[in-house]
Amino acid sequence: MSLFLTTVSVEEAIRAARTLATPLPSEELPLSAAYGRILAADIRADIDIPGFNRSSVDGYAVRSRDTAGASETMPAILGLSGHVAMGDSGYRNLLPDRCLYVPTGGAVPDGADAVVMVEHTESIGGDILVKKPAATGDNVVARGEDFRAGSVILSGGTRISPREIAALAATGTTTVPVVTRPRVGIVSTGNELIPVEDIPSGNQVRDSNSWMCGAFLIEQGCIPEYYGITGDDRTLLREVLGKALSRCNAVIVSGGSSKDDRDMTADLIREAGEVLVHGIALTPGKPTIIGRANGIPVLGLPGHPASAFVVLLVIARPLLSRMTGQKDQELVTKSFVLGENIPSARGREDYVRVRISEGKVYPEFGKSGLVNTLIRSDGLSRVPSGVEGLEEGDRVEVILW
Amino acid sequence: MSLFLTTVSVEEAIRAARTLATPLPSEELPLSAAYGRILAADIRADIDIPGFNRSSVDGYAVRSRDTAGASETMPAILGLSGHVAMGDSGYRNLLPDRCLYVPTGGAVPDGADAVVMVEHTESIGGDILVKKPAATGDNVVARGEDFRAGSVILSGGTRISPREIAALAATGTTTVPVVTRPRVGIVSTGNELIPVEDIPSGNQVRDSNSWMCGAFLIEQGCIPEYYGITGDDRTLLREVLGKALSRCNAVIVSGGSSKDDRDMTADLIREAGEVLVHGIALTPGKPTIIGRANGIPVLGLPGHPASAFVVLLVIARPLLSRMTGQKDQELVTKSFVLGENIPSARGREDYVRVRISEGKVYPEFGKSGLVNTLIRSDGLSRVPSGVEGLEEGDRVEVILW
Repeated sequence: MSLFLTTVSVEEAIRAARTLATPLPSEELPLSAAYGRILAADIRADIDIPGFNRSSVDGYAVRSRDTAGASETMPAILGLSGHVAMGDSGYRNLLPDRCLYVPTGGAVPDGADAVVMVEHTESIGGDILVKKPAATGDNVVARGEDFRAGSVILSGGTRISPREIAALAATGTTTVPVVTRPRVGIVSTGNELIPVEDIPSGNQVRDSNSWMCGAFLIEQGCIPEYYGITGDDRTLLREVLGKALSRCNAVIVSGGSSKDDRDMTADLIREAGEVLVHGIALTPGKPTIIGRANGIPVLGLPGHPASAFVVLLVIARPLLSRMTGQKDQELVTKSFVLGENIPSARGREDYVRVRISEGKVYPEFGKSGLVNTLIRSDGLSRVPSGVEGLEEGDRVEVILW
Repeated sequence: MSLFLTTVSVEEAIRAARTLATPLPSEELPLSAAYGRILAADIRADIDIPGFNRSSVDGYAVRSRDTAGASETMPAILGLSGHVAMGDSGYRNLLPDRCLYVPTGGAVPDGADAVVMVEHTESIGGDILVKKPAATGDNVVARGEDFRAGSVILSGGTRISPREIAALAATGTTTVPVVTRPRVGIVSTGNELIPVEDIPSGNQVRDSNSWMCGAFLIEQGCIPEYYGITGDDRTLLREVLGKALSRCNAVIVSGGSSKDDRDMTADLIREAGEVLVHGIALTPGKPTIIGRANGIPVLGLPGHPASAFVVLLVIARPLLSRMTGQKDQELVTKSFVLGENIPSARGREDYVRVRISEGKVYPEFGKSGLVNTLIRSDGLSRVPSGVEGLEEGDRVEVILW
């Protein structure tokens, strides 16, 4: 039991966390329930989409060669052979020097290779005057141009957004293979913690971290399971942790803020497995535990709310994405000019809560034990481990909330 | 019935859409179900948080004046009066020239005004040598420093993220007032459309837009209700639209791509209300309808998938946020250098699908009737209506997917 943790770099910690995670099996869901999930397999187009040459405008289907040289003053004169109705299944054949009216989305008839927009034509009697030459393919979406039958349209590991839903629907994927959602247990330790519904007395503190953690897990596509507060009773923690380990795919121990709580957590993980990391060169977030117990990953979070949040973002996120098979996604950041120096020490990564004001970014140097800096700030800025801080005027990347 | 729509600016269209929307009532949810919802009222702290002066380190609580001038060579010598345990409710009183051990998160005793980190002390017999002077407040989170009893900690209209969940939990907000989720009906028109489970024949097209629309609505915190495909049967559409209007807070008519479908939709909205906008100076997305029927907003989407998606983002999003009372949020964008010219016409807003490659952004000039450009692109870039296009080397803002 040492007072000073042996810290590893953020990179090493992420690597350790990811080695513990096992990809989860897949399940099949109806299209209506697939939004937000991770594709478990590549999806292929069942047929050519569209299945026919489709007009992308309201206009006249023509043989482009019949419009060569057409102009306002010398229009091409084409005989109108009729209208293609929407949803029409019959393919007519377009004869030379003739045209067919096709609405947007309608089928371009055989023989035609372009559609002239209504705006560039004039109707006179049974004839259509075309005032602009058309080139092959003009205003036509060719059969299979959207998706070719048999081609991979979406690859496994893709998060399903509304745009992927559109592609799944277009290719008739009514049953979608997705990765099952990780069930993640949340165990709270810390003698000072009380349930949120209670009124703290003395130096008690409401257990807000496990709720923050649960919401974060939902956001990451997991199912949180709350196992309550164990205080600092080692026997009780062992029992509750055991229950969580037997039912979940991963367990997060939301730590009390004292060192004793953390040591107890590490000891109990060791009893059922191993501790890979105890201490990360990360501020806030140093006293983090990464281990494996009963074969599944266990993450011990620091007790300070801001520290816990940074560890969820920096360590838990890549661990969970390995379980769901989600393709690695960089956190989206936005670049700003720094309005004030941010001191840091070489050799550790700092995540500083920041405020944006008039287009500049300012550090919000609140104590990491406060919840208010998490909701008063606009995002996080990372100070890489190789530098001794950032200076006013530097450009910094901000992970916006 | 004119071939050319009278278009209004994007700004006017958004304003019109927002005037139609009525804020929805609130409901109460348990904390575990509040993630992702919009707060319906301001939330105040019930008590001072923390309720006591709390140590943010493992160390010794001291009277700072007793450590004045302390150094490595001339430490202040303080008698150790004992340990404060975690969750301890009794407040001891610290006597002059003495100290008390306090773990991180523990209560700082009355009389003490600072905590000296263990790292800056040495224990000799019953005494603690303090090797650094402490200033008032060092390593202490004061009572009420996180949240002051009665103060507003979160304001109505805030979207509840994991960080807001932490603040709600910290202040004992176990029942959370949130805005009810808008129920939005989706009606599909268009004779060419068939259900996604069917195999298209002739010039039929699977109805992917209404599914994309449904997923988008879920993403925006709404409940989609699917009313199926009506084809171009006016009586059937009137009936289905009527049913949707009577059950929902808003209705989206996912249009067929032909002009006839759009005119029918506009006519039917007029029968039960009014059409405010029919045509927006927006590319893609021009043939959009904004109206009110039976007193609720109706949005007619263009039939092309990319057009429909842009209209959801640019028009539906602010309309829905007015219903949920969500504070206006700019879409988060990231700045890139343009790698290729994007032509545009003055007087209309263009939303161009773009690819990011080696840090530069390139337009993806796919036809808006294709779904594949939505999944192959990385985001959207806006070309404002006041310019005639953007040039290679310009900095552009990208709405990343």
